[in-house]
Amino acid sequence: MKSLIDITDFSVKEIDELLNTALDIIAHPKKYSKKCKGKILATLFYEPSTRTRLSFESAMHELGGSVIGFSSADSSSASKGESFADTAKVISNYAHVIAMRTPIEGAPLVASLNASIPVINAGDGGHLHPTQTLADLLTIKREKGRLNNLTVGFCGDLKYGRTVHSLISAFSRYENINIVLISPKELKLPSYVKHDVLEKNNMPYEETTDLENSLPKLDVLYMTRVQQERFADKDEYEKLKNSYILTKEKFEKAKKDTIILHPLPRVNEISVKLDEDERACYFKQVANGKYVRMALILKLLTLAKDKTKCTLNKEGLIYNQHKCTNPKCITKTEQELDNVCKPSKTDGDVLRCVYCDKKVNK
Amino acid sequence: MKSLIDITDFSVKEIDELLNTALDIIAHPKKYSKKCKGKILATLFYEPSTRTRLSFESAMHELGGSVIGFSSADSSSASKGESFADTAKVISNYAHVIAMRTPIEGAPLVASLNASIPVINAGDGGHLHPTQTLADLLTIKREKGRLNNLTVGFCGDLKYGRTVHSLISAFSRYENINIVLISPKELKLPSYVKHDVLEKNNMPYEETTDLENSLPKLDVLYMTRVQQERFADKDEYEKLKNSYILTKEKFEKAKKDTIILHPLPRVNEISVKLDEDERACYFKQVANGKYVRMALILKLLTLAKDKTKCTLNKEGLIYNQHKCTNPKCITKTEQELDNVCKPSKTDGDVLRCVYCDKKVNK
Amino acid sequence: MKSLIDITDFSVKEIDELLNTALDIIAHPKKYSKKCKGKILATLFYEPSTRTRLSFESAMHELGGSVIGFSSADSSSASKGESFADTAKVISNYAHVIAMRTPIEGAPLVASLNASIPVINAGDGGHLHPTQTLADLLTIKREKGRLNNLTVGFCGDLKYGRTVHSLISAFSRYENINIVLISPKELKLPSYVKHDVLEKNNMPYEETTDLENSLPKLDVLYMTRVQQERFADKDEYEKLKNSYILTKEKFEKAKKDTIILHPLPRVNEISVKLDEDERACYFKQVANGKYVRMALILKLLTLAKDKTKCTLNKEGLIYNQHKCTNPKCITKTEQELDNVCKPSKTDGDVLRCVYCDKKVNK
Repeated sequence: MKSLIDITDFSVKEIDELLNTALDIIAHPKKYSKKCKGKILATLFYEPSTRTRLSFESAMHELGGSVIGFSSADSSSASKGESFADTAKVISNYAHVIAMRTPIEGAPLVASLNASIPVINAGDGGHLHPTQTLADLLTIKREKGRLNNLTVGFCGDLKYGRTVHSLISAFSRYENINIVLISPKELKLPSYVKHDVLEKNNMPYEETTDLENSLPKLDVLYMTRVQQERFADKDEYEKLKNSYILTKEKFEKAKKDTIILHPLPRVNEISVKLDEDERACYFKQVANGKYVRMALILKLLTLAKDKTKCTLNKEGLIYNQHKCTNPKCITKTEQELDNVCKPSKTDGDVLRCVYCDKKVNK
Repeated sequence: MKSLIDITDFSVKEIDELLNTALDIIAHPKKYSKKCKGKILATLFYEPSTRTRLSFESAMHELGGSVIGFSSADSSSASKGESFADTAKVISNYAHVIAMRTPIEGAPLVASLNASIPVINAGDGGHLHPTQTLADLLTIKREKGRLNNLTVGFCGDLKYGRTVHSLISAFSRYENINIVLISPKELKLPSYVKHDVLEKNNMPYEETTDLENSLPKLDVLYMTRVQQERFADKDEYEKLKNSYILTKEKFEKAKKDTIILHPLPRVNEISVKLDEDERACYFKQVANGKYVRMALILKLLTLAKDKTKCTLNKEGLIYNQHKCTNPKCITKTEQELDNVCKPSKTDGDVLRCVYCDKKVNK
Repeated sequence: MKSLIDITDFSVKEIDELLNTALDIIAHPKKYSKKCKGKILATLFYEPSTRTRLSFESAMHELGGSVIGFSSADSSSASKGESFADTAKVISNYAHVIAMRTPIEGAPLVASLNASIPVINAGDGGHLHPTQTLADLLTIKREKGRLNNLTVGFCGDLKYGRTVHSLISAFSRYENINIVLISPKELKLPSYVKHDVLEKNNMPYEETTDLENSLPKLDVLYMTRVQQERFADKDEYEKLKNSYILTKEKFEKAKKDTIILHPLPRVNEISVKLDEDERACYFKQVANGKYVRMALILKLLTLAKDKTKCTLNKEGLIYNQHKCTNPKCITKTEQELDNVCKPSKTDGDVLRCVYCDKKVNK
């Protein structure tokens, strides 16, 4: 059995296979319309997320399967204080695959270690959101024809944008990727991503505050929202906000084949007037998200024929010697859960919590 | 492609066809049980409405299709400020037809102009609710055998009751309809409905505060609820409330074949004791609502084979010269939406907002 | 037609048949995968209960049927004050069977008297929860091979635990059952259950506060949660709480084949360490809950071919002479509902409300 918690749970080869299955689904939808007949997907959404939830549900229906679930913590037993481990064990009796969204970082991993069915992380707080990354990759592959040899610009809130971190992490395994980081100073890419991902993997990157002048060099522009709440200084926000809004006029500086991505929902960071531009691919991204989730559900259900439960990779694990201090980490709330950490992949001197990946004090 | 936003989006002939399809579904349910195999309905309900939502969902399941959606704004991306236009574009990738309920007037129209799939208005604030009108019409047709030559009484809150306005509007296109308007003075039919619909179409009508003495002349009695909140003067409410409650005793004055309709939910405006009376048709109305929604879904999916997107009828449109002042209008909240108005159909001197139909100041 | 409101609505023979159908479903799942094709279950959940709701929904999907419904009162018309009788009549047009959960005691009974489809009580306040009892019985039958000749311990909150009351009531119809009641004094089994069920049926029982020393004699240990809120004296709670937590160490005193049940969700009353013990059957109970609900849905749909509506057993009914004083009783909120009581089955001198079973003052 296999779960998808972190995009790196899949090798580049496995991701390629997933994307190829998605392409085959797009080309031959009828071939897949009964593949999940009799199968049930449980969408366990502890916080609202229409787009992601409906994408999973639509994916399962298009495969001929059924869906059960909840769309907010209020309508779940979570309000009665049930652990994620117990919920996972219970739902394993009701469904064949779980898609879980929660503000608690590491919860989908805990669920996957206790479930007897595959678990898909549909977003855990600011931590991970691997199926968005799969949607991003499929869109780039379809639109640009390749996942190597690209200059990719990320614009907006690079500090808190988990979709940005995930996509950079995914690209670290492809060849000849140039990264352009476009953001206000307040919202720069965190240094641990810069060091652990970009530098350790020798990926060329530059940092800038200037969207307009970065446009001519980009193959892909990944936009995200700059939220007022992120700024301590409101004047600073007012001064900056317009420079990170993409308009038709600004985008004239881009290449003829630069594509625009956005994880959505947008508020006003891309002008509606750009929607009709062929290079605006954020609604195509939505469609691709559905197709790649169909491919993922199929893959995980196939792998689930081997009933061996998911476990932590034992190498280097340190049990109950260091406490994770991240207040959003699953170790803060889950009943009888061990504190487990291990050395960082890229920097062996650093210990990270296995659930939320935050640095743990030695 | 066609959407149903306003009941007058369909001609009388098209409505007749819809009702006939509904009758055929009632007569031969099995014939239709797989018609929507592989199709997905998205129920986007930004405010709770069990009856309408479950009616749509049941309709889709009885056609062999699937359903995705949400049942309150809390569990949707609306809380993140996504525009209706974007939501429509996103959901077009997940489903084949949308049923939308929202307190924001004109939002379903905006959705229909942006979606690449048909949109059904399942109620937008106090504005329109065309599928309820279809349920009303089917019930009258089944019970009375005709939609012409009828005396129809509307009783209760005629001021705010959108189902009343819609049904009167629908009847304006049939022949020899007499309207009896029964309400307290505080809740009389708005003058614009009287002028624009009844008078412009030469429909005979009378206004009265007396339910009991109106009963003997009615073929159809359409009851609605008189809500305490609508009265500034609580004493006035206390004095009046019982006169608009229909009891077994009161209804003895009615003809042997007068049918009672009610859009439901009722609170106490029709005594439970009347439920067993054969002329009480409000639960039959519920069943008819499901059948006519089945017919509607089928019709819209058939018309959707022509992929041409819905657009505003361009005739007479005036862009961005007058602002709609209705605080519930979609123009108040939607990102980058033009203010558009046009001359009223019945009175060319009056301009109306194309989204919410409210009068616009010149 | 038949509804399941109280576990005693079914005879012991009928329960045996249900359990046998469940066993056949477990043995031959494919045989049942299309049995409910074209049928719709409505899950009307006026309060959150993930486990029970998803169990019903999974059950219906595994039978090939569809599901509609709501998962909290907020997203239902309940907020508009609709009566349970009207909701039942409306939903009868949308679905083929109802599963209803509500905090209002007696509401599912009222629904069943008004619906033209079967109603399943999925929990009404502190009153009844018969499908949990069916899950308990199936688990004991599968694990112990019998429902007679058992010593059954109930531990924890025996005062408010409706699953405890229901299971004791169900066992009163089997032979040679010994009951051990283990609880703090504050949470003892209510005397009416002791008198009306245990004593009237000559069931041997003992009361104790000592879990550890009771373990060696039990065939079945039914754990429930001891909630802090139940204690007026917080010191008392602190003193007691650990004695009702089952740990691996404590359970060593039990027999080799003592099984542990729990209605879930648990908080900390059973140590997670016990989950791997073969005798820990609370997650098997979850699976059994689904199977027995599948059997129940099938049985009720079969019986629904006879369209005769459910009615109160007329014998001994007393109308509108005594008012029920239970503030949670349906008679407190439902429009135009008669107050009806009748003599207790076990003590003819006592009158009980037919809806909530609470004693009524003469």
